[in-house]
Amino acid sequence: MPAPLQFHFDFISPYGYFASRRIDAIAQRHGRTVEWHAMLLGVSVLKVMGLKPLMQTPLKGDYLRRDIPRHARRMGLTLGRSLEGGGSHPLAMARAFQWIKHHQPALQGAAAHTIYEAYWAEGRDLSGPASLTTLNWPEGLDGAAIAAAAASEEAATLLREAVAASIAQGVFGSPTVIVDGEPFWGFDRLGDVEAWLAEGGW
Amino acid sequence: MPAPLQFHFDFISPYGYFASRRIDAIAQRHGRTVEWHAMLLGVSVLKVMGLKPLMQTPLKGDYLRRDIPRHARRMGLTLGRSLEGGGSHPLAMARAFQWIKHHQPALQGAAAHTIYEAYWAEGRDLSGPASLTTLNWPEGLDGAAIAAAAASEEAATLLREAVAASIAQGVFGSPTVIVDGEPFWGFDRLGDVEAWLAEGGW
Repeated sequence: MPAPLQFHFDFISPYGYFASRRIDAIAQRHGRTVEWHAMLLGVSVLKVMGLKPLMQTPLKGDYLRRDIPRHARRMGLTLGRSLEGGGSHPLAMARAFQWIKHHQPALQGAAAHTIYEAYWAEGRDLSGPASLTTLNWPEGLDGAAIAAAAASEEAATLLREAVAASIAQGVFGSPTVIVDGEPFWGFDRLGDVEAWLAEGGW
Repeated sequence: MPAPLQFHFDFISPYGYFASRRIDAIAQRHGRTVEWHAMLLGVSVLKVMGLKPLMQTPLKGDYLRRDIPRHARRMGLTLGRSLEGGGSHPLAMARAFQWIKHHQPALQGAAAHTIYEAYWAEGRDLSGPASLTTLNWPEGLDGAAIAAAAASEEAATLLREAVAASIAQGVFGSPTVIVDGEPFWGFDRLGDVEAWLAEGGW
């Protein structure tokens, strides 16, 4: 059985959201599964790389304000939230996700999709653990238990370890897909991921 | 006659080099021509955006050291120079290019290819005007005249104006292709450029 595709993402990343809607089909076309890894751009970009938040970077922010809606249109998606501030802090979402992954690994993909859809399609405020209670969780997951877990020390530790592991592998942006040790950063590299899978590298 | 593709690039950008080898064919497939614009990452990235040089950015630098040779392999190119420092300052190349473009616009593409090949394939040091004398210039261009022009105030002014115009259009990275006013940043977006041309937007 070939190794899973390692999919690193931040829930507040729109490009991570776009990629999340394609990664399962890519894996399936090549006989792979997906392992999902929550990461935090606030740690990699701001602390480790020492850069500014993307949307606040001159010139690039303006480009992203055009590029993100353009991609959404192309994919037939309607973004339920503005890109202009008012976003949720990703800690509760990411902690909840890593807790679910740890306890019910078979549901990690479904859980990630649930959070991503609630955040980007429905535009919900998911900044606190309690906000996670009423998401449209797949069968087998309980919103109240997830909300409680998202506030737990256990979930905080699981996320801290996941973020450290992600950075130790050199991951800095969302999405990043690692294929048999080979990293591909960016939504616009999913075509390269497919080519790498098909050709076994180059 | 539809408008030319606006191709913005820095000679020291390997992704600009990769894209430079594809942009003519892309334009041709869609009945377009290419207008070439030298820009300076040292102005857009360092001064306007306030970021660090890419190769010196933690995590991202390591990724680029893997991604750039990977792309070269895939394209069947051998890079004649290291990515680890020792690069040439792009001023002489960019000034020479803008001077040629101004005086012999029909040769702008051929001139850009000449400089890019000398820098990235042959690995020449092109940090001073005199170094441009012996490049393999296309017919109609004289190396000695170009070297002299690259040291002139006229060329400095032409480049200064080009860089300012590029930034005024929101260009910050190399390569950037602007199609009928729509900007696409990054070598990995050439597929989007083709789709936009084919579909007339989305």
